[in-house]
Amino acid sequence: MKRIVTIGGGTGQFTLLSGLKKYPVELSAIVTMSDDGGSTGTLRDELGVLPPGDIRQCLIALSESDKTLRELFLYRFESGGLKGHNFGNLLLSALEKMTGSFDKAVKMAAEILRIRGKVIPVTLDNVRLAARFPDGRMIEHESNLGNEKITKDTTFFLTPPSSANPEAMDAILKADAVILGPGSFYSSLIPNLLVPGIVESLKKTSAKKIYICNLMNKENHTGGFKVSDYFETLSKYTNGNLFDCVVYNTERPQEKLLSRYAEEGEFVELGNAPQAPKFVGENLISNMLYEQKSQDPLRRTLIRHDSDKLANIITRLL
Amino acid sequence: MKRIVTIGGGTGQFTLLSGLKKYPVELSAIVTMSDDGGSTGTLRDELGVLPPGDIRQCLIALSESDKTLRELFLYRFESGGLKGHNFGNLLLSALEKMTGSFDKAVKMAAEILRIRGKVIPVTLDNVRLAARFPDGRMIEHESNLGNEKITKDTTFFLTPPSSANPEAMDAILKADAVILGPGSFYSSLIPNLLVPGIVESLKKTSAKKIYICNLMNKENHTGGFKVSDYFETLSKYTNGNLFDCVVYNTERPQEKLLSRYAEEGEFVELGNAPQAPKFVGENLISNMLYEQKSQDPLRRTLIRHDSDKLANIITRLL
Repeated sequence: MKRIVTIGGGTGQFTLLSGLKKYPVELSAIVTMSDDGGSTGTLRDELGVLPPGDIRQCLIALSESDKTLRELFLYRFESGGLKGHNFGNLLLSALEKMTGSFDKAVKMAAEILRIRGKVIPVTLDNVRLAARFPDGRMIEHESNLGNEKITKDTTFFLTPPSSANPEAMDAILKADAVILGPGSFYSSLIPNLLVPGIVESLKKTSAKKIYICNLMNKENHTGGFKVSDYFETLSKYTNGNLFDCVVYNTERPQEKLLSRYAEEGEFVELGNAPQAPKFVGENLISNMLYEQKSQDPLRRTLIRHDSDKLANIITRLL
Repeated sequence: MKRIVTIGGGTGQFTLLSGLKKYPVELSAIVTMSDDGGSTGTLRDELGVLPPGDIRQCLIALSESDKTLRELFLYRFESGGLKGHNFGNLLLSALEKMTGSFDKAVKMAAEILRIRGKVIPVTLDNVRLAARFPDGRMIEHESNLGNEKITKDTTFFLTPPSSANPEAMDAILKADAVILGPGSFYSSLIPNLLVPGIVESLKKTSAKKIYICNLMNKENHTGGFKVSDYFETLSKYTNGNLFDCVVYNTERPQEKLLSRYAEEGEFVELGNAPQAPKFVGENLISNMLYEQKSQDPLRRTLIRHDSDKLANIITRLL
């Protein structure tokens, strides 16, 4: 069985894993650890735990337990002091406090959810995303960066200094394929590459490396970006191109989706792709109408990849 | 296998079940549903759920899953907005909100914890304990009654009108033995008897009926009580004596326990027991030093029955 490693976080990684798990492949999900918004942010601040939200989504995607248990992990309390808290996040945080180890907590939750594959925090250090802006300002915490205007001269880093989870590096080195994305560019993808050891492992591994580009631009962060701009910016964080292939969507979302989700920004077009690596475009978009849930404290991307289309193109590229 | 039904709530029922589960008997725990203090009370008020706390304790007592899962259900958050909330309570409440049914929630949690036996809410109605005092005052909510002076002329009732869970009545009717207690007299035992259908089932069943008396008096509620006073008061709530046997403790707690837990009130002595039913006294006390946990919003009884001694005497009486 081919060993596939996905690197990312959030809904994008959930979607990719949900598609890939239908194929006979061995999956490992390496997950960003700098989220500090919403329920996750509250738990980090109040309990001093590591961020459970992205890990939880990957655990659910890979779970082979019955629907009720998966729904329970996704359940979000709607009122009172628990409002906005996600049950799966509470479970991971309780396990971490109980055992004193986030790593153990993730492994126990994986057992409870009977997952196929592995979910690996990119680092076990308690890191926060920070950005230094061209005007000299420095802003810490991912949740504070959402409304900031990010340019190509904005520098991202993690604080305090951290190192990669050895299991993450090991998974990359032993993989047949490593897939970065899809996911929010500066909050789910780049923070993985900022952990010392990850880019180095990507350089060393003989795995095929695929980058899946975003569907839509996020105005303040990647406004006006083409696929080629994503690729170019990514290459800055990997010290030159490491990828064999860039996968992007060619299908303009239906007008009803675009008008319904007008605030999501604009559709990403190819732009001037370089000769190498290989750029592969297909219709990758989901036609589902997603809703922003009222009890969810975070704004979610509602124009999304289709998990089956994604898994289909990835498995053809292996 | 003999069918044993326990009726109660709180630490007392947990202790009894923990002892009995070591014997080859078929256990059903009928659990009080009028608790509204601590984490349970907050969840009832904020989420509109039924009280999970006593149910959770019984589930853990009967669980055959590994230690970590049982510890997780017992885990109590220590800081932030979750402070004082017990993880098992959150799980039961999330399941109830998700499925819209407390009954389903209890059965799912029982499956997750792989329990041997059954845990049965005494009613599935959303009831509160209330008391009417001789001076005409009426106080609602169990949590408001802790510091009230209760006399033999105080009348307890449940509000709004409720009916017994059919599973609870069925378990009593089919039992070989029914055990009431141990447990806080007015907050864990009597509320079960106030649910219409329970006393009637106790009258109908051919099961041997055993009452396990408290170790210590609770000053405002049962100050000065002897075993005989407990029995007499109990008989008022069952419209005459229904029990075949009253089990009580004969061993005065060690001085170090009594002085350490001086605020718990006084040791219960036999008093003038009637000719019938049978009164059986033995050393039933635990010599463990229990601690009040700082993150627990409720004061707990710290002089407790020993689960093995309890189970031993009960199985001899069957």
